[in-house]
Amino acid sequence: EKPKKEDSCHATKPNMLNVHLVPHTHDDVGWLKTVDQYFYGDRNDIQHAGVQYILDSVVDQLLKNPDRRFIYVETAFFYRWWKQQSSSMQQTVKKLVNEGRLEFVNGGWCMSDEATTHYSAVIDQMTMGLRFLNETFGPCGRPRVAWHIDPFGHAREHASMFAQMGYDGFFFGRLDYQDRARRRRDKEQELLWRASDSLTPPMADLFTGILPNGYNPPEGFCWDQSCDDPPIRDDPDLEDYNVDDVVRRFLAIANSQAIVYKTDHIIMTMGSDFQYENANLWYKNLDKLIHYVNALQANGSKVNVLYSTPSCYLQELHRANLTWALKMDDFFPYADDAHDFWTGYFTSRPALKRYERISNSNLQVTCNQLEVLSGPASRKGPFGEGDSQTMKKAMAVAQHHDAVSGTEKQHVANDYARRLAHGWQRCQVLVSNSLAALSGSSAERMYCDNLNISVCPLTESSKKFSVNVYNPLARPVTWPVRLPVNGTAYLVSDANGKSVDCQVSVNRGFAVNELVFQVQAPPLGFTTYSVSLLQDGPPPASTQHLFSLKTENLCVHLPQFLRVTFDPDTGLLSSLSNLETKQTIKLTQNFYWLVYNASDGNNLQSDQPSGAYIFRPNSSTPFLISKTAKTESIQEVRQWFAPWVSQVVRLYTDSKALELEWTVGPVPIDDDLGKEVITRLDTSIKTSQYFYTDSNGREMLQRKTDFRPTWNLRQSEPIAGNYYPINSRAFIKDDVDQLTVVTDRSQGGGSIHNGSLEIMLHRRLLYDDVRGVGEPLNETSNIFPKGLVVRGRLLLSLDRPPSAADAHRPLAQEVVLQPLLTFTDGDLHPNTQLEFSGLQAALPPAVHLLTLTQWDKDSVLLRLEHQFQSWESKLNSQPVTVNLQKLFSTLEVLGVSELNLSANQWKDEMTRFHWTPMTGTGHLNLFIRFYYISS
Amino acid sequence: EKPKKEDSCHATKPNMLNVHLVPHTHDDVGWLKTVDQYFYGDRNDIQHAGVQYILDSVVDQLLKNPDRRFIYVETAFFYRWWKQQSSSMQQTVKKLVNEGRLEFVNGGWCMSDEATTHYSAVIDQMTMGLRFLNETFGPCGRPRVAWHIDPFGHAREHASMFAQMGYDGFFFGRLDYQDRARRRRDKEQELLWRASDSLTPPMADLFTGILPNGYNPPEGFCWDQSCDDPPIRDDPDLEDYNVDDVVRRFLAIANSQAIVYKTDHIIMTMGSDFQYENANLWYKNLDKLIHYVNALQANGSKVNVLYSTPSCYLQELHRANLTWALKMDDFFPYADDAHDFWTGYFTSRPALKRYERISNSNLQVTCNQLEVLSGPASRKGPFGEGDSQTMKKAMAVAQHHDAVSGTEKQHVANDYARRLAHGWQRCQVLVSNSLAALSGSSAERMYCDNLNISVCPLTESSKKFSVNVYNPLARPVTWPVRLPVNGTAYLVSDANGKSVDCQVSVNRGFAVNELVFQVQAPPLGFTTYSVSLLQDGPPPASTQHLFSLKTENLCVHLPQFLRVTFDPDTGLLSSLSNLETKQTIKLTQNFYWLVYNASDGNNLQSDQPSGAYIFRPNSSTPFLISKTAKTESIQEVRQWFAPWVSQVVRLYTDSKALELEWTVGPVPIDDDLGKEVITRLDTSIKTSQYFYTDSNGREMLQRKTDFRPTWNLRQSEPIAGNYYPINSRAFIKDDVDQLTVVTDRSQGGGSIHNGSLEIMLHRRLLYDDVRGVGEPLNETSNIFPKGLVVRGRLLLSLDRPPSAADAHRPLAQEVVLQPLLTFTDGDLHPNTQLEFSGLQAALPPAVHLLTLTQWDKDSVLLRLEHQFQSWESKLNSQPVTVNLQKLFSTLEVLGVSELNLSANQWKDEMTRFHWTPMTGTGHLNLFIRFYYISS
Repeated sequence: EKPKKEDSCHATKPNMLNVHLVPHTHDDVGWLKTVDQYFYGDRNDIQHAGVQYILDSVVDQLLKNPDRRFIYVETAFFYRWWKQQSSSMQQTVKKLVNEGRLEFVNGGWCMSDEATTHYSAVIDQMTMGLRFLNETFGPCGRPRVAWHIDPFGHAREHASMFAQMGYDGFFFGRLDYQDRARRRRDKEQELLWRASDSLTPPMADLFTGILPNGYNPPEGFCWDQSCDDPPIRDDPDLEDYNVDDVVRRFLAIANSQAIVYKTDHIIMTMGSDFQYENANLWYKNLDKLIHYVNALQANGSKVNVLYSTPSCYLQELHRANLTWALKMDDFFPYADDAHDFWTGYFTSRPALKRYERISNSNLQVTCNQLEVLSGPASRKGPFGEGDSQTMKKAMAVAQHHDAVSGTEKQHVANDYARRLAHGWQRCQVLVSNSLAALSGSSAERMYCDNLNISVCPLTESSKKFSVNVYNPLARPVTWPVRLPVNGTAYLVSDANGKSVDCQVSVNRGFAVNELVFQVQAPPLGFTTYSVSLLQDGPPPASTQHLFSLKTENLCVHLPQFLRVTFDPDTGLLSSLSNLETKQTIKLTQNFYWLVYNASDGNNLQSDQPSGAYIFRPNSSTPFLISKTAKTESIQEVRQWFAPWVSQVVRLYTDSKALELEWTVGPVPIDDDLGKEVITRLDTSIKTSQYFYTDSNGREMLQRKTDFRPTWNLRQSEPIAGNYYPINSRAFIKDDVDQLTVVTDRSQGGGSIHNGSLEIMLHRRLLYDDVRGVGEPLNETSNIFPKGLVVRGRLLLSLDRPPSAADAHRPLAQEVVLQPLLTFTDGDLHPNTQLEFSGLQAALPPAVHLLTLTQWDKDSVLLRLEHQFQSWESKLNSQPVTVNLQKLFSTLEVLGVSELNLSANQWKDEMTRFHWTPMTGTGHLNLFIRFYYISS
Repeated sequence: EKPKKEDSCHATKPNMLNVHLVPHTHDDVGWLKTVDQYFYGDRNDIQHAGVQYILDSVVDQLLKNPDRRFIYVETAFFYRWWKQQSSSMQQTVKKLVNEGRLEFVNGGWCMSDEATTHYSAVIDQMTMGLRFLNETFGPCGRPRVAWHIDPFGHAREHASMFAQMGYDGFFFGRLDYQDRARRRRDKEQELLWRASDSLTPPMADLFTGILPNGYNPPEGFCWDQSCDDPPIRDDPDLEDYNVDDVVRRFLAIANSQAIVYKTDHIIMTMGSDFQYENANLWYKNLDKLIHYVNALQANGSKVNVLYSTPSCYLQELHRANLTWALKMDDFFPYADDAHDFWTGYFTSRPALKRYERISNSNLQVTCNQLEVLSGPASRKGPFGEGDSQTMKKAMAVAQHHDAVSGTEKQHVANDYARRLAHGWQRCQVLVSNSLAALSGSSAERMYCDNLNISVCPLTESSKKFSVNVYNPLARPVTWPVRLPVNGTAYLVSDANGKSVDCQVSVNRGFAVNELVFQVQAPPLGFTTYSVSLLQDGPPPASTQHLFSLKTENLCVHLPQFLRVTFDPDTGLLSSLSNLETKQTIKLTQNFYWLVYNASDGNNLQSDQPSGAYIFRPNSSTPFLISKTAKTESIQEVRQWFAPWVSQVVRLYTDSKALELEWTVGPVPIDDDLGKEVITRLDTSIKTSQYFYTDSNGREMLQRKTDFRPTWNLRQSEPIAGNYYPINSRAFIKDDVDQLTVVTDRSQGGGSIHNGSLEIMLHRRLLYDDVRGVGEPLNETSNIFPKGLVVRGRLLLSLDRPPSAADAHRPLAQEVVLQPLLTFTDGDLHPNTQLEFSGLQAALPPAVHLLTLTQWDKDSVLLRLEHQFQSWESKLNSQPVTVNLQKLFSTLEVLGVSELNLSANQWKDEMTRFHWTPMTGTGHLNLFIRFYYISS
């Protein structure tokens, strides 16, 4: 007996304005406090919030009146609460869910950020939350509405994912103030979002509603303990009886809201941040409100108020059977006023953003793939008990819109990082066990997590060690390995005992030298290299020049793919050539900073400072850090722009990309000015305002400076108002040249001038931007007490536009899922298996193995993804067939069942509402992307 | 089946330290918000507090775990909540009360102030609250413990009343910091208070406990929504598991608390101001605390924690069967630090204090007595429907320790006054109906409520009117009537048509003249005077001189009783004589102000300013307002000391007291200094630090400057530290002379110098004293936008000490219960009955008719009081017998039943705990004071 959710919706009244009151709480999975502090209600001195009490209280209050409704969103919290409840309380809650009195919406582990998250991590966190709901509550626990009321702008890829997860609709609260004004005027606050240019409609169509009041109650009607609005005072014996006044104010608000929506149903969100900790306050007054407002119907009032939920409201919109405006672009950037662009958080906390991205790679590689490939032996083995859950949960909370976004307090950012580090420790045990099982050697494995700053105790001291290189991609990869060493000559051999080219050069870390060699790893598998010290002592002259240097015109090139030249006067990049395609562009690169100066004279329009969320430089001309770069060339070109800005330019033999490894920090603040550091690439490419950025690392969107596709923009911030999120790449192009920049983390950027592409690298700010976080974004740490130093990489690829995706798709993939290196000291046991591949053969280039993870004892979850958009590659944008039976080398596929994207519903049971757009449908290409294998 | 309350107490463990956790909320019946705002949770912007939700939440949470306990105190709130509940909820609450899970303590309408209240009003408000509990819950609802956790010092008369109301014990939180330190050292924080020197022990003995931490939880253990202490985090899967730390801290606190108490039981108050609005937070953590602390008993821990109530705790103390230190004095003044004496509120808001006192007089006279004397005709009659409940409730909330105390915010003070005014309006209907019934005339009656500022529209315009004078005392009184008039000559006749002496003199109000005559009214009854205009026009020379004036030495005297002289140079009082006893003292009187100056250089010891609660002048030398007074003598002597300080000195023919009618304000603050205005009487009486003040208007207590009876005082504030509350009178005396000052409201005062007595009249302050009220005490009003002007009266009586009480007892009574004047325009109907007395004869002087009020349809509540202390009068301090059958003239007494003082228990069922003092017992005089008459 599967209860039908619709039956639980209160009846509405035809020919009346039906006001759907939706009691809800918005519980950040970390922001001003850590996720666990929020759960327990700890550190209430920072912010009064305790989720355990919210759920206690709401359940109590729902039981008092069967008419009442509540929605809950964040499974990270609900899960914590659930496991502390008695079984009788669990039964009570199940009853409430079955009766539709408690409804889950969204239902992911968190409400993810949309600007700075990668789609793979978002799918994971949604899957984790929805799985818990599914297994706990069955179909009645499956959310039918996506609910992103707080994220600061909305990504098209998120809408696409929600559609593919089976959601019937999507509601949010924040959009550009001009966009909102236009939509209110045209009654387009409810619309149909066509969220992919590649998937056949309605596969990625998502009905989208903009909430009337952010996610807050209408003014004067907030009855939470955190609010000060007057309660309904309906005892005539006490002073200040106010029922008439309350009803009058409510009707005025309802009627004015009805004017800007299309149907005779409107929604009011009755709740806000961490509200309902004492749900009685809310419900007692809402009960009275409903009673007194509806009582007026006897006198002819045409307003009907009811307890409702987003899905009940959505159902009424669907029943209205109207056509809805179609939207194809996204909701970035978000401005809440003329000088208040939320484009700073695209870059805020660049170190955390990178750590989150590398953690995702580690999670996919080690926790997920290796657990599948070596089975139970991974979880309990010679290195103890490991698990993937800790890392999965840490990654899931890190997707929250105040986590990877960088908009949390410093201590909370530290907590997210600590959770990721703890998760990784648990994973390392699993990886060691797993590699022991697959290689047949239980020799101790070491992890060098600080290779980004060239620190690895083992390689710095050992005379002989081996390097296991695990490749998570479904195709073979080559990859440069850079190890800190103190010797001057080394012998590096591959798994076949064959010697491999390697170089030793002067290191920039604590060790004297750096050993560099290219590794090649098989698909979904590993290979092993052994390294032996040949010679101690001072570094020799480099034995091989990767770069050929011409003194008269500093020029470095690799014969195979790329050439880059430097200006001998300035030391800056001057050109980039693709030797295969024989194309060359002029390319200048430099570093700049932007500043918000509170005492700046031309700051009259607004006093909004830059902060964790907001980007607002005073001047539209960035400050150049140095006209010239001091340049040194070894096997790489090292550039110094300032004591706190430097860069290494590298080309690798087998790579088609130029690597720019930037190091920025500590950003100086002696002048009492916070600074936002960008690098800008100025090229000869002929653009006319257009450029392209990705959406959550997946599809590319066209952007145009000083323009929005759906309304007539009045631009008020020439830089901040033209910044967009870059999750994995951005490009500029003309008819002949496309320069693609692949990033190693989420950053913000734009193309302010034609031919130019700029990316913000680091931010250090001295003011809070008054959006709640209450701290200036001024990061320091134990290691960097004078300000955080951040290092990252940009990979530049120059191609002909029609084939550029053939290069940047795999390139970005290699950055997102990078090989994992593990080290073993000394000689390996002779029986050690040095190579392994989990696949029978590499997958075709168009197919990305997105997910391979153990689901339960006998089944695994597999996600295969066609990674090319329909228009971007003649070669690769075609349908592809994969034979699952012949996929794995060591796993036998006993059966396959297809699910929705979030794996909480069988694909063939996924019946979504059908919505009719005002205009025609879109593309027709069909890509079957998601599979699920179960025994 | 009467459940025994003891059975509901949790078992304690012998040979362990038993920690009684008492969950409670302290709900001010008005303070920063009005009483109704507090009830509803309105104006949460001022302070987050909503009592309706507290009671909702506590009941819910008590039902979740039968071990949990809660106490509730303020019936003003509980009553409001109760009448909004469904009958099923009422049944649920009754069950909780019957099972001792919800316990009422104190149980009056409010928790009254102890320094500024009059005992008659306190008895009334306690009776009102306890009656509601009694009628709603029966014996299980009867509080056994008095609970004054917040009042700022404790009056002996309060303890005496509590004892006579049947309470087994009394707990409070605030006492002098030195007193507390001494008692902690000597384990005397629990003691036996012998609260009367006249009642036979243990009649006024009250076991008294001082709570360990004010009324707050121990540091680190506040789990209310208003607190920030860390919750118990007992999920090992979440971060910051803290059970071990919480238990360790709790045991440390419990053990250190046990050291300063006598038994192996200690109490912890788990709650505070308006806490438990979300009781789940408290109980969830308390459940865990009890669980984890007691779990350690398995490992040998000797600490046992339990949910408890004050009466369960008291029961354990009683079972301990120890002897307890005896205390005979009181707990005034209260200082919480060396320079922080809470003696300012003795005088704060003098206008409100006076309005409260006159309202009490009106309530007793009109609402209570006249309702009894004329029966149902009073409630519904020719003038509509009147009631006494509105006034009774208004008076009851006005007794709250942030009401008449003057320590509330201005808007709340306004609300109290508004409630009293509204109550009085309802009473006026009742009075008019009642007088119509008693007199046989339904002619319209008018009330001149502004006679204190000499405003009465009727008397100012009418050519013929009558004045009905109702006397609430049980003996005949004479009383000067002063009416504003515009004529120059009037004929005044008494009820027998006999002409009465009267004078017309220049008025100080809006009317041109003032008509003055003495009236004489029968006991508990009225008489009627008629007034006819004889002559319009300018005032004639006064026709009769009450005062004989000698120009060479300004001296006014009345031949009969008193003479007063003035210094011809200064215009100040110079001597006072009692002509009967032939005694004369030198008497100088002047006005001074004291100041707290924030920028004063010698303010180094502390920066505590004077405020609503605190009195703290910088200097111990008050500023003299003027060395001389400009003096004018008509039939009275008028003195001007400054534009904002003046006084009228009056003697009346039939009066044995000198009247000083002072007018102070607007207190100037142009110099940015707040001022506290005192008047000081300097006499030739030879005192040596001793003086005397009353306790709540009843028994007199001996005071000694720079001394406390029970500890070795280190005085740190020479003035503020020597101020005591004066509710109705204070006196100084030597062997031959006693000067008694009767006040018309509660004020503060002291005897800083020998022979001197000073009284603080008005306070206007520019700083908040940081005790929570958050406003400077800087009163203005619509009528007085530049600062409140306050007028009042001091009555001075000079007598031989052994017989002084014979004069000041009736004198003070006449001020507390003053005659009520009602006016009728034009001629009265010939059949009008002009005189009435409710008594067959006057009561003996020793007996005061304290209460005569309708109880229910067929019974009335009568309180007769022996008003003399055992030692104060040879003539009157003797037992007296009253024949109740022969008391009333119009009421037949069908039966009499004696109750306790608060009328919620039959006297013969009143069995209180017996406690053994460390030393012998006190006095032996027995006064039977309280009767209850029922049909």
